Amino acid sequence: MRELYHYPLCPFGRLTRIYLLEKSLDHELMVDLPWKRKKIFSENHVFSDLPALLEMDGTILEGWYAIVEHLELHYRSTSLLRVTQKERAETRRIMTLFNEMFFADVTKNIVFEKVMNKYMGNASPDSASLRKGNAAVGKYLDYISWLMDRRNWLAGDEFTLADVCAAAQISCVDYVGSMAWDSHPNVKEWYMRVKSRPSFRGILADRISNVIPPAHYSELDF
Amino acid sequence: MRELYHYPLCPFGRLTRIYLLEKSLDHELMVDLPWKRKKIFSENHVFSDLPALLEMDGTILEGWYAIVEHLELHYRSTSLLRVTQKERAETRRIMTLFNEMFFADVTKNIVFEKVMNKYMGNASPDSASLRKGNAAVGKYLDYISWLMDRRNWLAGDEFTLADVCAAAQISCVDYVGSMAWDSHPNVKEWYMRVKSRPSFRGILADRISNVIPPAHYSELDF
Repeated sequence: MRELYHYPLCPFGRLTRIYLLEKSLDHELMVDLPWKRKKIFSENHVFSDLPALLEMDGTILEGWYAIVEHLELHYRSTSLLRVTQKERAETRRIMTLFNEMFFADVTKNIVFEKVMNKYMGNASPDSASLRKGNAAVGKYLDYISWLMDRRNWLAGDEFTLADVCAAAQISCVDYVGSMAWDSHPNVKEWYMRVKSRPSFRGILADRISNVIPPAHYSELDF
Repeated sequence: MRELYHYPLCPFGRLTRIYLLEKSLDHELMVDLPWKRKKIFSENHVFSDLPALLEMDGTILEGWYAIVEHLELHYRSTSLLRVTQKERAETRRIMTLFNEMFFADVTKNIVFEKVMNKYMGNASPDSASLRKGNAAVGKYLDYISWLMDRRNWLAGDEFTLADVCAAAQISCVDYVGSMAWDSHPNVKEWYMRVKSRPSFRGILADRISNVIPPAHYSELDF
């Protein structure tokens, strides 16, 4: 059985978990344990590169990018990058927007401050970072809303990794109670559709000790 | 002739520029002009997705990820992702480390605060962000140093996109004078080797109005 090592509230771990389920690739989830990982991963794994996938043939893939591109090549059914070169470019464009920009602007400033710092023994969240994150989230919701006026899913007619990446980031921000859903009804409607997919169930069941998500976090109709 | 639209001090634009030159793919550099872009790019291009490549057949690729994966598929000579699945996974692992983590931890906090804010009409740089960025850079330099004690280039024996992504981010931080080179001599030696590649010349010649880089920025032996 392949093994996926992850942190529950990491957006890149979440996107990989959803991806594996959407591709119907069996795996066991392993919450990262540094003392266990040392035996498995290469010595160059001194930096945090989660999520990391240990394939059944012993192949080690670290980081969502290595995992996704490797699995897309080897398991071609139900490609979540889509089929034509135009579709794939559009999916990857939106993935980058969320994995890099939304992550740096919003997730890092809000989720890392509210949760990660607590575990790393740092002091209370930096209020300037929280302010920045909260100020930045609106432009992404505006953009999703704009796309939802024109498309069924973020990158076009079909559900793709663009939806997975966006929802993975947003779900982390939602967990810590920092999503203002009521201002963007069609974004909320899109997120409800993502939440109702079986691949999303594990994400909704995640619980971090000492950090309780708002009641609507795991409700499909919220 | 293909056209690459970019901002000069964007790490993702820089990685794409180096990549195109390393692949010997002819292109014209277009500094982004919003009024020009509107005619070329799709209407869904309402968000900043630079760099963006207009291929000779009219294909539009937005964001480094869409550009790199498209060109790797269509122009297979001199793959900067390397050959074996293990090499490709290792290259992509390190790319993610710099494109997402270093970007969010360092580049965003330092370069965006020092330069981008100026152009967007914001006030002076946020000193808390600068402090965070400066505090974070050390762990990445430690890691590059660790790799350089064991390898010729970041992902192994050969120059890859891992080196390109790392150097693209670092070059932006270096432009604004925030790299402490003397603490990590073997990282400096690696960066000198990257700088001396012909593909890097354009990066070293970049100048942003009102922001003068330190003297060593464009020196090959610094």
